[in-house]
Amino acid sequence: MRTADYRQVNITGGFWKALQDKVATVSLYNVYEQFKETGRFDAVKCIRNDERKPHIFWDSDVAKWLESAAYVLAKRKDERLTALVKEAVADICANQLPCGYFNSYFQVYEPENIFKKRTEHELYCAGHLIEAAVALYEAGVDEALYRAMLRYADYIYERFYEKKDAGFYTCGHPEIELALVRLADCSGEKKYLTLAVYFLEERGKHGEETYDFTYPVYHLDRCPVREMREAEGHAVRALYLYIAVADAAQRLQDAQLAETARRLFADIVNKKMYVTGGVGSSFHGETFTFPYDLPNIFAYGETCAGIALALFCDRLAKLEPRAEYHAVFERVLYNNVLAGMSADGKGFFYVNPLEMHAALYDYNEGLRTKLYCPLPERVEVFDCSCCPPNLTRFLSEIGNYLYGEEDGTVYVEQYVTSEAELCGVKLCVQSDMPYAGAVRIRTAGSGALKLRVPAWSGGIAMKVNGQAAKADVAEGYIGLAVSGDTEIELTFAMQPRFVYANKSVWYDAGRKAVEYGPFVLCAESCDNGADLSAVRIPSLDGAKQTEGSFFTLEVPAQRLQTENGLYAYAPPVPQPFLLKLIPYFCWANRGKGDMQVWWL
Amino acid sequence: MRTADYRQVNITGGFWKALQDKVATVSLYNVYEQFKETGRFDAVKCIRNDERKPHIFWDSDVAKWLESAAYVLAKRKDERLTALVKEAVADICANQLPCGYFNSYFQVYEPENIFKKRTEHELYCAGHLIEAAVALYEAGVDEALYRAMLRYADYIYERFYEKKDAGFYTCGHPEIELALVRLADCSGEKKYLTLAVYFLEERGKHGEETYDFTYPVYHLDRCPVREMREAEGHAVRALYLYIAVADAAQRLQDAQLAETARRLFADIVNKKMYVTGGVGSSFHGETFTFPYDLPNIFAYGETCAGIALALFCDRLAKLEPRAEYHAVFERVLYNNVLAGMSADGKGFFYVNPLEMHAALYDYNEGLRTKLYCPLPERVEVFDCSCCPPNLTRFLSEIGNYLYGEEDGTVYVEQYVTSEAELCGVKLCVQSDMPYAGAVRIRTAGSGALKLRVPAWSGGIAMKVNGQAAKADVAEGYIGLAVSGDTEIELTFAMQPRFVYANKSVWYDAGRKAVEYGPFVLCAESCDNGADLSAVRIPSLDGAKQTEGSFFTLEVPAQRLQTENGLYAYAPPVPQPFLLKLIPYFCWANRGKGDMQVWWL
Repeated sequence: MRTADYRQVNITGGFWKALQDKVATVSLYNVYEQFKETGRFDAVKCIRNDERKPHIFWDSDVAKWLESAAYVLAKRKDERLTALVKEAVADICANQLPCGYFNSYFQVYEPENIFKKRTEHELYCAGHLIEAAVALYEAGVDEALYRAMLRYADYIYERFYEKKDAGFYTCGHPEIELALVRLADCSGEKKYLTLAVYFLEERGKHGEETYDFTYPVYHLDRCPVREMREAEGHAVRALYLYIAVADAAQRLQDAQLAETARRLFADIVNKKMYVTGGVGSSFHGETFTFPYDLPNIFAYGETCAGIALALFCDRLAKLEPRAEYHAVFERVLYNNVLAGMSADGKGFFYVNPLEMHAALYDYNEGLRTKLYCPLPERVEVFDCSCCPPNLTRFLSEIGNYLYGEEDGTVYVEQYVTSEAELCGVKLCVQSDMPYAGAVRIRTAGSGALKLRVPAWSGGIAMKVNGQAAKADVAEGYIGLAVSGDTEIELTFAMQPRFVYANKSVWYDAGRKAVEYGPFVLCAESCDNGADLSAVRIPSLDGAKQTEGSFFTLEVPAQRLQTENGLYAYAPPVPQPFLLKLIPYFCWANRGKGDMQVWWL
Repeated sequence: MRTADYRQVNITGGFWKALQDKVATVSLYNVYEQFKETGRFDAVKCIRNDERKPHIFWDSDVAKWLESAAYVLAKRKDERLTALVKEAVADICANQLPCGYFNSYFQVYEPENIFKKRTEHELYCAGHLIEAAVALYEAGVDEALYRAMLRYADYIYERFYEKKDAGFYTCGHPEIELALVRLADCSGEKKYLTLAVYFLEERGKHGEETYDFTYPVYHLDRCPVREMREAEGHAVRALYLYIAVADAAQRLQDAQLAETARRLFADIVNKKMYVTGGVGSSFHGETFTFPYDLPNIFAYGETCAGIALALFCDRLAKLEPRAEYHAVFERVLYNNVLAGMSADGKGFFYVNPLEMHAALYDYNEGLRTKLYCPLPERVEVFDCSCCPPNLTRFLSEIGNYLYGEEDGTVYVEQYVTSEAELCGVKLCVQSDMPYAGAVRIRTAGSGALKLRVPAWSGGIAMKVNGQAAKADVAEGYIGLAVSGDTEIELTFAMQPRFVYANKSVWYDAGRKAVEYGPFVLCAESCDNGADLSAVRIPSLDGAKQTEGSFFTLEVPAQRLQTENGLYAYAPPVPQPFLLKLIPYFCWANRGKGDMQVWWL
């Protein structure tokens, strides 16, 4: 399957238009200010300043910001933003070494160690710069960085592939692989794909340097890529690698690599993913751990890992359009990923827990030697601030993930109010999602459509040109042939429903979460008072939407009341009350408090 | 209330006789061998050996072992044990400095720092040596160490109280305070009580050196002792301090100190104690944390803290005989404390979690940089091996905690098969506890009795001299006057019952534990298979005792079965099975596996 490019998709209204506007006008500028203030944009000027030494991964922050700006500028004129992009690009280009190399940390502070330290993100930064360059070039914003990065890629090719004189074979943090595939696609130069595949194939064969945490799993070196059976190691690194595996599988028509990608996906979604789509449950190394280990309070579920999972779903869908891939894409997008940003577009979560106890956080904050504890409120910048620009770029290019085509059939994967044209069929989608299940699709032209049935759908009502029609569902898609001007009215029944975790997820056993459409719902103490853990929802009958700061579902529930002491022989007494649930992604926008997803 | 001294109590049969025999013949020798092998007994010879430098607290290990031996030798002849005691005592006495000081670490390795480092357990070691000396002296085993420790105590008195020229005011690890009270009681010398009270009163007034963990709480320096309102800091240190507070309150008839002790006890039992009686829920600094923070998997609940809580209960009972104190004593003794030792008497737990997932432990063991994770099986010695000799001494002196007297009334607090004489009344107790509720008490002589009704009792049947009699219960005790030879047959109804945690204990909300008599029960995967977290016990009807490696209760239960994937909209299906429950203290005696206390 080929998916539509965001440039060919216009998001014209609704939830996503509003969100993208916020990203373009608030988030992107705010991230810029934070990065400016912390010295990230000064770093690429490559002036040595030992008092303000850049982190080894700062280039990637700048790159992801540039990539975000590319997507924004492809769709809207913004002279100030264009100027900021041009300035940063000029700084990078001006300081690129004659050989093509660019890294604002190594060339300034450790030139003797260029391409010698595997674990220090050098090719990771290169990968993000390449992605930014391609994005700016394809958006028609800038060509200079693209030219510069072609030269950088050539230099990497020379050192790692031709001469093989670098100090390592594969980068500690995958990213270069998928970036090179993208560069090969854009430039038509096969050598970049060759290099990407080389990086993939060399991994796990050389006993390379790695960190301590979960050695040798952390850096994905336990075995050659083709032998990987379980998702493990640092979640973002793992998923960036898996994306490249799927990319290579498609480009090379390599069935073994495709099977590897599918196997890793299955391991993730069947054993290692939060109900929010969050992945990488351990803060210790930011890693995948072992099956069913999904702690709620001390969760990790990094925003970047969620984005990476969504990208991996997209790549798998490109290998083979299966509804499951976009169902997981939808789950992680509307829950784990969106939770990464605050309602005002300025604050970000790196970590996305499924349960928050403010008392626990406060206790930990009071310690001199603190333990790991997720934050109860979003912040504007992190020391390792990978997630904010990753969110701004991903949300700005969401148009890439809505439509696909295969063998002349048009796939509608995500229902977003937008316009596009594929296989000679013009599509104009008006979607009430994510808060309601009605979609109106007007098409012009003739062709075959496949419309994905959301996994949460409780039933389908369809009209074609005003006439009720039976939805012909096969493998998760409604199949439909259109010709001439056609109006399809679809309603996917959206009602709150319980979702249950596998019995082996010990943190959730005997509990249930509530979903509404694509959303996993949560409740906060600011709406519901304390002791959320003792709240039981016997049934969702009587649930109804109500007023609130966000979409709010009021559900008849019970709080288990107990005697004053710590232990009692008298059973708890259920006290009825109305529990207010909001989408998980909306939590933590109203001050510090308790939050919960899984209910008795 | 004055409690009977273990020397006046003969434990003649049943559960405790068997346990004490095991401690005397197996545990004590095994701990000796481990300590010998690790160099602890060589260290007190005070020969410098930089390759085998002793830990700063090793003297306390030797001291607790000596104290254990004292209690054993008071009751049984054992020439080998006596010889080992004499040898260690001789080594200590031979190396005591002329001033009276003894510390096998400081005087050999850091003589320049004697009494200069508050956090390094110097007075803690002194306290344990004093306790050992008193125990050996009172047991009639040895007088040399007693004489030596009187001189050491005098030296401490001189330096800390008279000259005040030591480098700190109070020791980082309380113990010296309660030891000095004990020395004052034994010697009749008031100055030791004066010094104990001085150490108590100076605490929290000087901003003294402390560790990082939970500064300034860790070392109990946040406020003067009399102002303490909440149990906090390192749990063992805290409880040893609180014991001394209660001791001082009784000796000085100080109502404010008594109130302080009662307030701290109430804070512990109402907000910070596991259902097993375990306390100090955090591994991070081995500390009390904040109300209702009682994690099951990552619990701490150190064995030593449990012993200290039991001792604190005893001291509070001495201030005022309230049934609650011995109810908590019973809870912590039969659960948290007994769990500290393996069934064979050789292995020990430092940490006592309420839930074990072997997969989690195995995963962590596979990491190069490990996280904190409780052990799934007991070990014979720890690097910091405070718990093993603390258990051997406490279990060997259990006779101290059975009987009391106040104003001519004899209290029976714990029902242990034993003989004693108090207030001119001879008591001969035949107890079926802890596994059954029947007790036969034969008395000779005239007096008033108060027989504690266990908190778990589901009803009382009583006969006096063969005749049914109504139990006259007031404030948790059966009041009874006896004269001449009297036979009292008591049966406290013992049946399994659910116990529920306060709604604010988020880890246990919606769950229940099962108790049987004094025991909290648990289940292990070796008896019950995997996925214990998904086990529901709807009712205890139909529960019955059955064959097993330990006392085993078979309860009709359900395992919630789920579909294969990670999340499903279909509710779990309860699958009936018979759950085998055993006393919590018996867990982890049959290999590594899963264990659980709290049930759906």
